[in-house]
Amino acid sequence: MVVELISVGTELLLGNIVNTNAAFLAEKCAGLGLSCYYQTVVGDNRERLAGVMRTALERSDILILTGGLGPTQDDLTKETAAEVWNRELKMDGHSLERIESFFKERGLEMTENNKKQALVPEGAIVVDNDNGTAPGIILTEGEKRIILLPGPPNELKPMFENSIVPYLNGLENPEEPGIIYSKTVKICGMGESKVESEITDLESMENPTVAPYAKTGEVHLRVTARAADEKEARKKVKPVVKELKSRFGSAVYTTEEDVTLEGAVVDLLLANELTVSTIESCTGGMLAARLINIPGVSEVFKSGYITYSNKAKRKIAGVKKGTLDKYGAVSPQTAKEMARGTALLTKADVTFSITGIAGPDGGSQEKPVGLVYMGCYVCGTTQVKEFHFNGNRAKIRETAVSAALTMMRQCILEYYSQKTFGKKV
Amino acid sequence: MVVELISVGTELLLGNIVNTNAAFLAEKCAGLGLSCYYQTVVGDNRERLAGVMRTALERSDILILTGGLGPTQDDLTKETAAEVWNRELKMDGHSLERIESFFKERGLEMTENNKKQALVPEGAIVVDNDNGTAPGIILTEGEKRIILLPGPPNELKPMFENSIVPYLNGLENPEEPGIIYSKTVKICGMGESKVESEITDLESMENPTVAPYAKTGEVHLRVTARAADEKEARKKVKPVVKELKSRFGSAVYTTEEDVTLEGAVVDLLLANELTVSTIESCTGGMLAARLINIPGVSEVFKSGYITYSNKAKRKIAGVKKGTLDKYGAVSPQTAKEMARGTALLTKADVTFSITGIAGPDGGSQEKPVGLVYMGCYVCGTTQVKEFHFNGNRAKIRETAVSAALTMMRQCILEYYSQKTFGKKV
Repeated sequence: MVVELISVGTELLLGNIVNTNAAFLAEKCAGLGLSCYYQTVVGDNRERLAGVMRTALERSDILILTGGLGPTQDDLTKETAAEVWNRELKMDGHSLERIESFFKERGLEMTENNKKQALVPEGAIVVDNDNGTAPGIILTEGEKRIILLPGPPNELKPMFENSIVPYLNGLENPEEPGIIYSKTVKICGMGESKVESEITDLESMENPTVAPYAKTGEVHLRVTARAADEKEARKKVKPVVKELKSRFGSAVYTTEEDVTLEGAVVDLLLANELTVSTIESCTGGMLAARLINIPGVSEVFKSGYITYSNKAKRKIAGVKKGTLDKYGAVSPQTAKEMARGTALLTKADVTFSITGIAGPDGGSQEKPVGLVYMGCYVCGTTQVKEFHFNGNRAKIRETAVSAALTMMRQCILEYYSQKTFGKKV
Repeated sequence: MVVELISVGTELLLGNIVNTNAAFLAEKCAGLGLSCYYQTVVGDNRERLAGVMRTALERSDILILTGGLGPTQDDLTKETAAEVWNRELKMDGHSLERIESFFKERGLEMTENNKKQALVPEGAIVVDNDNGTAPGIILTEGEKRIILLPGPPNELKPMFENSIVPYLNGLENPEEPGIIYSKTVKICGMGESKVESEITDLESMENPTVAPYAKTGEVHLRVTARAADEKEARKKVKPVVKELKSRFGSAVYTTEEDVTLEGAVVDLLLANELTVSTIESCTGGMLAARLINIPGVSEVFKSGYITYSNKAKRKIAGVKKGTLDKYGAVSPQTAKEMARGTALLTKADVTFSITGIAGPDGGSQEKPVGLVYMGCYVCGTTQVKEFHFNGNRAKIRETAVSAALTMMRQCILEYYSQKTFGKKV
């Protein structure tokens, strides 16, 4: 079946925001074995939006629209979809109740125009929104379908994963019978080109297919098979996943769809009953924040420190004044003392330190912006690594945190595999 | 004049990459006063690309295409453009020389298919590419224009800035003389529908226009005017911005394009020479991380603590065991002791505490998931607020951090406006 993505929003046409929703949906749809030939961005304009929808309905089976479901006057995706298929908008009691309790729970006053969000075209399937007030909507006419989803990524993504994926998977697909099954092999600590060079032979396969997706500090390899039933499809996927695991070894941190890199690290800590503490300078808490994304982290997370200033590094982690004076705050010596000091302070089994220059200022010839040192203490031994990251302040910090999670994982694995650590600093 | 953006590339349709080029070009074109009503993504497919171009030529004056100018067989944007306007492809000696020297300078061997990149449609304006091998191409037919640009952002962006912007600026624009100027009024601590209900009268204006954009914990109102020159446009925008400021008062945290909420908070701390420390439980460092997004925060940021466990809350912030036992970790009493304890510990002028239930587990009838208490200490006085956030763990934490920045800002403003604080806890 052919799906077409339509993103609605003047802010996209003005370039105020980047269209990450389209990339998210495109990747998910590809994973579901749906073909996608067109993506369109159109503004909050009834006539133009209707035109785009009519054109899309002529060439695609499923339209997925995002955005324009808000309470304001210029949110008119729902109204336009109803117009295109001549449907009346009816008040949906269930959605209205959910919206009312959404405001009540937060002690907020619900304004009149929020009720607009509970209006749905007749004959629609209503999809609950657990993260906002605009419900998702599925419309069907013959073989054609129109799916309306909220624009905010933190509302769109869970709704798509939890409700739309199962719906799309349940659809009959005449020209391509059977089902699609895919598994993702997630690799950390390796660049995309390096990963690709290892799988050139596999990329030419047709069923299953292997497709690489570059993420920050990670590469995901999606293995997708089509077969009469899931059992058959799994049988096609299994040997390829096994082959990829053997090729990439411990760089593969999971093959589970819902396991993130921080989740894999927390699982590793839990499995080995290791406690962890963090101490961060340039990343300012981002590493701790990612670990604490994981429910149940309380079992292992002792405490975190943000020591952005030299004074804090000394006061909290006991970094020696001499070390800071002689080598500077961004040095392997400081990173090591931060990690060891935090181990002494918190008695955690694992501690991790990050100190670097995120820019835009503070760089120099010998210590350029993007230079970051990280220290990882595991049960008595501390390893320090030097990194060089590119990009602006935000990009450098984001990439640093992914590298930190990868390094923490490697250090723990090395400790248990009894391998000797790299050159001590 | 109306411009339309067409991004060519199967990798975009598969979601392998995010379409940042479209956002870049859209913002630049808006800045040039060009209207843009449609953006399209289409794959490396001659027939579909030609169809998209023909449709775009019917409704827009200028087509800007990116991607598909590479040396390989599936790069066919140039060939398709030539086909749409029945132009012959001719070898461009100048471009061929540049491509040859590009390879020579880098000590690389030039393959036969790179010569393909020097083929240009007859009558084309060739735009040199200083960062790659594919030249840009400008085609004109009557009042219509087709501009072909390379896909790699590091080639596209400088080429657009240096060659295409001057070209577009030089074009006569009969029906819409003059330029576009816009200013954004950024509001925190108010929902989109609440903001919307305050400006319904302004949303019907045509020049300038007022458009709301919902962000997490914020609403941005963009005021956009068209006029003969920037001076004129500014004159139209100014009174509306003034009106919005008076309507929303201190909820307006900036009217500067590049100032974020955390930036406004850091500016407020800097302006009043206040130091700040944070102590976070469920947000696990996200508040500190956002403050540290801002270069120069080192002037004001003392230290941050992540006390996810009760033990850490006691050990680091000195929260009383009795308080934790009697009221629990998620209580106004604990939030207050966390903030005050951090003030004692770090001697910061401002300290901020967050403790809550991010879920999915840990909720109860009287303390549901999403319940968060925040404490803000400002020079001796501590204010505590109760919040109820919705959504999954990630959404609750993200929303909590925006609310925290808003509350910190309000508390500091209240302190200086000598207003009395809310009900003490």
